Amino acid sequence: MSFHSMWAELLPVGRGSASGGYRRFAWTGADADCRAWFREQARARGLTYETDRNGNQWAWHGDPAAGNAVVTGSHLDSVPDGGAFDGPLGVVSAFAALDELRGRGVRLGRPVGIVNFGDEEGARFGLACVGSRLTAGALTVEQAHRLTDGDGITLPQAMEQAGHDPDAIGPDPERLSRIGAFVELHVEQGRALDLSGDRIGLASAIWPHGRWRFDFRGEANHAGTTRLADRRDPMLSYAETVLAARREAELAGAVATFGKIAVEPNGVNAIPSLVRGWLDSRAADQESLDAVVAGVEKAAREHAAAQGAELDVTRESFTPVVEFDHALRDELARILGTDTDLRVPVLGTGAGHDAGILSGRVPTAMLFVRNPTGVSHSPAEYAAEDDCVAGVTALADVLEGLACT
Amino acid sequence: MSFHSMWAELLPVGRGSASGGYRRFAWTGADADCRAWFREQARARGLTYETDRNGNQWAWHGDPAAGNAVVTGSHLDSVPDGGAFDGPLGVVSAFAALDELRGRGVRLGRPVGIVNFGDEEGARFGLACVGSRLTAGALTVEQAHRLTDGDGITLPQAMEQAGHDPDAIGPDPERLSRIGAFVELHVEQGRALDLSGDRIGLASAIWPHGRWRFDFRGEANHAGTTRLADRRDPMLSYAETVLAARREAELAGAVATFGKIAVEPNGVNAIPSLVRGWLDSRAADQESLDAVVAGVEKAAREHAAAQGAELDVTRESFTPVVEFDHALRDELARILGTDTDLRVPVLGTGAGHDAGILSGRVPTAMLFVRNPTGVSHSPAEYAAEDDCVAGVTALADVLEGLACT
Repeated sequence: MSFHSMWAELLPVGRGSASGGYRRFAWTGADADCRAWFREQARARGLTYETDRNGNQWAWHGDPAAGNAVVTGSHLDSVPDGGAFDGPLGVVSAFAALDELRGRGVRLGRPVGIVNFGDEEGARFGLACVGSRLTAGALTVEQAHRLTDGDGITLPQAMEQAGHDPDAIGPDPERLSRIGAFVELHVEQGRALDLSGDRIGLASAIWPHGRWRFDFRGEANHAGTTRLADRRDPMLSYAETVLAARREAELAGAVATFGKIAVEPNGVNAIPSLVRGWLDSRAADQESLDAVVAGVEKAAREHAAAQGAELDVTRESFTPVVEFDHALRDELARILGTDTDLRVPVLGTGAGHDAGILSGRVPTAMLFVRNPTGVSHSPAEYAAEDDCVAGVTALADVLEGLACT
Repeated sequence: MSFHSMWAELLPVGRGSASGGYRRFAWTGADADCRAWFREQARARGLTYETDRNGNQWAWHGDPAAGNAVVTGSHLDSVPDGGAFDGPLGVVSAFAALDELRGRGVRLGRPVGIVNFGDEEGARFGLACVGSRLTAGALTVEQAHRLTDGDGITLPQAMEQAGHDPDAIGPDPERLSRIGAFVELHVEQGRALDLSGDRIGLASAIWPHGRWRFDFRGEANHAGTTRLADRRDPMLSYAETVLAARREAELAGAVATFGKIAVEPNGVNAIPSLVRGWLDSRAADQESLDAVVAGVEKAAREHAAAQGAELDVTRESFTPVVEFDHALRDELARILGTDTDLRVPVLGTGAGHDAGILSGRVPTAMLFVRNPTGVSHSPAEYAAEDDCVAGVTALADVLEGLACT
């Protein structure tokens, strides 16, 4: 089955008719449809299929127990109203690359695996990369048991309803020890390749990133009768802080975003008592990220003090920089460099991935495919079919280069 | 029953144990308790009690059908987590003033009525002054039928559940025609009296005011991977507009507030596609209000254009200036001026009132009682008992002066 046919088959699954965006959330019906598709792809190719204890799906060419396997893949779930490419491009390309390898008639000296990691986006339970985290021991069973969706359904309940035994979940070091290299192909989530005019890139690192909650507390009051001089309006401090975050990010060559807000009482004729804003910031290195967050917090404190508001800043999450394996990256650059038409720039990325989770346990690399819109987590994310096919060829070259040596 | 006893009796009704704020919403159990309290006050004084077709409560000394009545009162419902004074102070003071008049032994030449207007705050159905609007014909029966609360219960359903016939609602010109003067006593919702050192004030006018919805539309994108240069982030335009509103209000001596916001998708790692902010603005005159809103909209359009966002501005509501009856105000100033200890400044107000609704049909005036915190629509609103008692005396003087002439 060609890349084109596989892509067309997966395209309608979990797509909303109104927004055109995807809602393939973990352990839902759309997720089950994606999983059935994966299993059928494995069956059609005569690959050994297994679902691991954490619900990740694997399809094997060769005997995984032989060890030193080369694994590729990504995820099939989506963010709310996400695009078609984030995740599925890596899984579809993996099957297509294996088909190309078989077509080339090369003899593979290492087992080759294709993986679909469960619940990468965290759209349902609020934590990203649950499948790979559990397998890598980066999420404990106790923590996983406490994950709950918006309807109060826990992760174990959702797994059980979907037919997966929740008592089985936990770290899987033996499985990871069989993997000699993991390569994830992913649509680029920015415009670097579009700007440099290249189809394919290699990942250097995942930027360190974190989330900080800014709670600005003022005094609820009547919007019609309270003199400006008597106000302690936390919306003003929030607004100043949003603009400070943009300035600090520009200075540091980083990104900073206030995308989520909660206001109390959130009434048209009420000065707020509380404005709660969440800062998401990421930078190429820790020092730059620290500078951005310190700058934003300093500005926020100064404006809050001037406006009679109180401020609490809470770091809600933090992930340090992930440097992908240098030797594997050099090897991939060498393999792809033999194609004289292909220039493969090395890029950092601000997004988390299963590859980032695995990189602490397994030599890991990432390939990016050009996204001319630069848009991500939206129906507007895009890769041209030519570029997708170039991605499949590059991935096949990488698998051949790694598994035939 | 003294002012103090009546106040103490009403104080626990509908008060939340956590916030200390009130939730006396129209046609709820707390509202029914307030209504029972009003009816009992009328009964205990031998007043003629009636509930009108729109659910407003009336208690009469003398025969209302005689015409040219002097009516005083306010409302007993509250905003969410409101204070104890906004509304109830006017109703409790009305009964206490009538008691004082009777104690003085004066002969009243005009009927005196006490009123509790229903659903003044609009906390449940989103429209303020429903009881007085219906009576004055400023809200049609069809419009009232469409009012719905947050649980999908319509106003007629809520009325019926509370034992009031919803088919009875509608304009009541005959009732209004019997009223020769309406005087509402209200806690001040700002600090003008506190700053001038006066206990009691008289209203000049209700400032013109309105609500405008600002819809800033940008492009949803990944907060971690989208370069600052590639963003169309509507939160930035919103933040600039919040600060512009403050500047424009300062310039015009007006007030302007962004207290309510809705963001899509409102995710920590998502640049918003939509930021919807509501502007509430009020000024002493129409020209100043127009200048504020035009200035805010101009700034919003400039920033939105610079940031690649689109902007729609919608006026959701507007109320022109309400000038209270000049002859009645002069008469009240004359009556209160005979007490040489009392200086009674004349103040504008930014808040709407049943008195504002009635002022188009009936000669209407308002008395304000000092609020040292200046806070309104919050448990922190306050009037000292001395000032409340001064308010009762002033209201009794006014009733005597009007009804004995």
